[in-house]
Amino acid sequence: MKVIESLETLWQARKEMEGPVGFVPTMGFLHDGHLELVRQAKKQCASVAVSIFVNPTQFGPNEDLDAYPRDLDRDLTLLESVGADLVWTPTAREMYPDGYQTWVETTEVTQSLEGSYRPSHFKGVTTVVAKLFNAVRPDKAFFGQKDAQQVAVIQQMTRDLSYPIEIVVVPTVREPDGLALSSRNTYLDEEQRKAATVLNRALRAAESAYLDGERSGAALRSVMAETIKAEPLAEAQYVSCADRVSLQELDRVTDGALLSMAVYVGKTRLIDNWILK
Amino acid sequence: MKVIESLETLWQARKEMEGPVGFVPTMGFLHDGHLELVRQAKKQCASVAVSIFVNPTQFGPNEDLDAYPRDLDRDLTLLESVGADLVWTPTAREMYPDGYQTWVETTEVTQSLEGSYRPSHFKGVTTVVAKLFNAVRPDKAFFGQKDAQQVAVIQQMTRDLSYPIEIVVVPTVREPDGLALSSRNTYLDEEQRKAATVLNRALRAAESAYLDGERSGAALRSVMAETIKAEPLAEAQYVSCADRVSLQELDRVTDGALLSMAVYVGKTRLIDNWILK
Repeated sequence: MKVIESLETLWQARKEMEGPVGFVPTMGFLHDGHLELVRQAKKQCASVAVSIFVNPTQFGPNEDLDAYPRDLDRDLTLLESVGADLVWTPTAREMYPDGYQTWVETTEVTQSLEGSYRPSHFKGVTTVVAKLFNAVRPDKAFFGQKDAQQVAVIQQMTRDLSYPIEIVVVPTVREPDGLALSSRNTYLDEEQRKAATVLNRALRAAESAYLDGERSGAALRSVMAETIKAEPLAEAQYVSCADRVSLQELDRVTDGALLSMAVYVGKTRLIDNWILK
Repeated sequence: MKVIESLETLWQARKEMEGPVGFVPTMGFLHDGHLELVRQAKKQCASVAVSIFVNPTQFGPNEDLDAYPRDLDRDLTLLESVGADLVWTPTAREMYPDGYQTWVETTEVTQSLEGSYRPSHFKGVTTVVAKLFNAVRPDKAFFGQKDAQQVAVIQQMTRDLSYPIEIVVVPTVREPDGLALSSRNTYLDEEQRKAATVLNRALRAAESAYLDGERSGAALRSVMAETIKAEPLAEAQYVSCADRVSLQELDRVTDGALLSMAVYVGKTRLIDNWILK
């Protein structure tokens, strides 16, 4: 497994990779959700590149950039164990040098949900993912369904910008009690960790209502909101039942609709989602 | 020479091109300046792709999008004659389908000169060039010095977005009387065509002053403005003596400074530039 820091070295190494090339962009502090992306990439591609970069431009001024957990040695051991061929660990200084001034923006699908609470977040995401795509030139890129709006935004950007890249969406990996894996779960203390299952419980409750015939978006949002309200350590920032491509809220719900939410458990902001079918 | 319209077909054809791949983006209605770009690309690369696309997003609402000259058959004959390997002629519908919503913006180097008179122009340029780069994945891309600010903007964007693409700048090709070749020269009547040499004359006059020891940016701008003022059919929109990378106006001028201007001859807007040395 090659571990590369500089852009120039990456460009050279890319030329020697056998295609099709799969790509898994990450912010490191890897969990089994990330490793599942790499495993899927290995299945579908001749070689797999992974990037580890905690991208400063997708964090808001009051968010957890400095606190975001990092452990490169552990990440590299894990990536070696699942057969990654190349790991790129660029520096912020090389990604955003002095005088940096180019931004990629996807304007509509970024407005609602996460975008409405994290105003510059997706501008940072689309910019860095475009940079990673440009540098790595993959045939396929792998993203987790866990970040549902990110998936919708990256799919839109990839289409809009004419990239010859297939976006592969991999199902969310969960703990046995249903909590979606997230690097931010490490922020939770024992009690909060138990309370954090409320996201999955709220999604399941809304799914049950849907399977029982409920087709009102407002009613399903209400089921999720009530479930979260019943958990003293949790506070919902938003609950949503939306079209999974446009992310517009739905009045009348059909198969394929996206249930999603952001919930504070203590000071930790967690997200989760579920596609109805 | 392959002629391709659809993006999917281009992606397939690209995989079969021998590298390094040179790329020449154009808006068609080719003149010898474009052909010189292709000749340089042929010299430096194993195969050469050319795009022909009159990009609507780089024209302002009162600009000449509909009037912009087009002659695809003639363009293809010319490109065949200089040995282009692939010509991509995308449609506006495929480049900007319904729901299109992603933009690439380079913020600082786009503000002055052309950018100040054509406010959305460079947003259209960076977006379409990013799309072309993504679709073609060239090793080198060839641009004419004629569009000096475009060169500075594309160089900045290419660096910022981590593209493994070398930008090759090719000197402006001129008529025997000094007029820079431009598809827009076809708008000029006979009298205007003669008057249009004033751009080159103004650049030469400022260059002479510089070679005679003048080092004041204001004085060099004044030499250019006066030369243009002396031509009754011409009216300067701006004259500039600026740093060629940042495009900021210079007080004190040194080798490598960029003289540039936009001049109306009748209703036709012409640009030209010269690097001092």
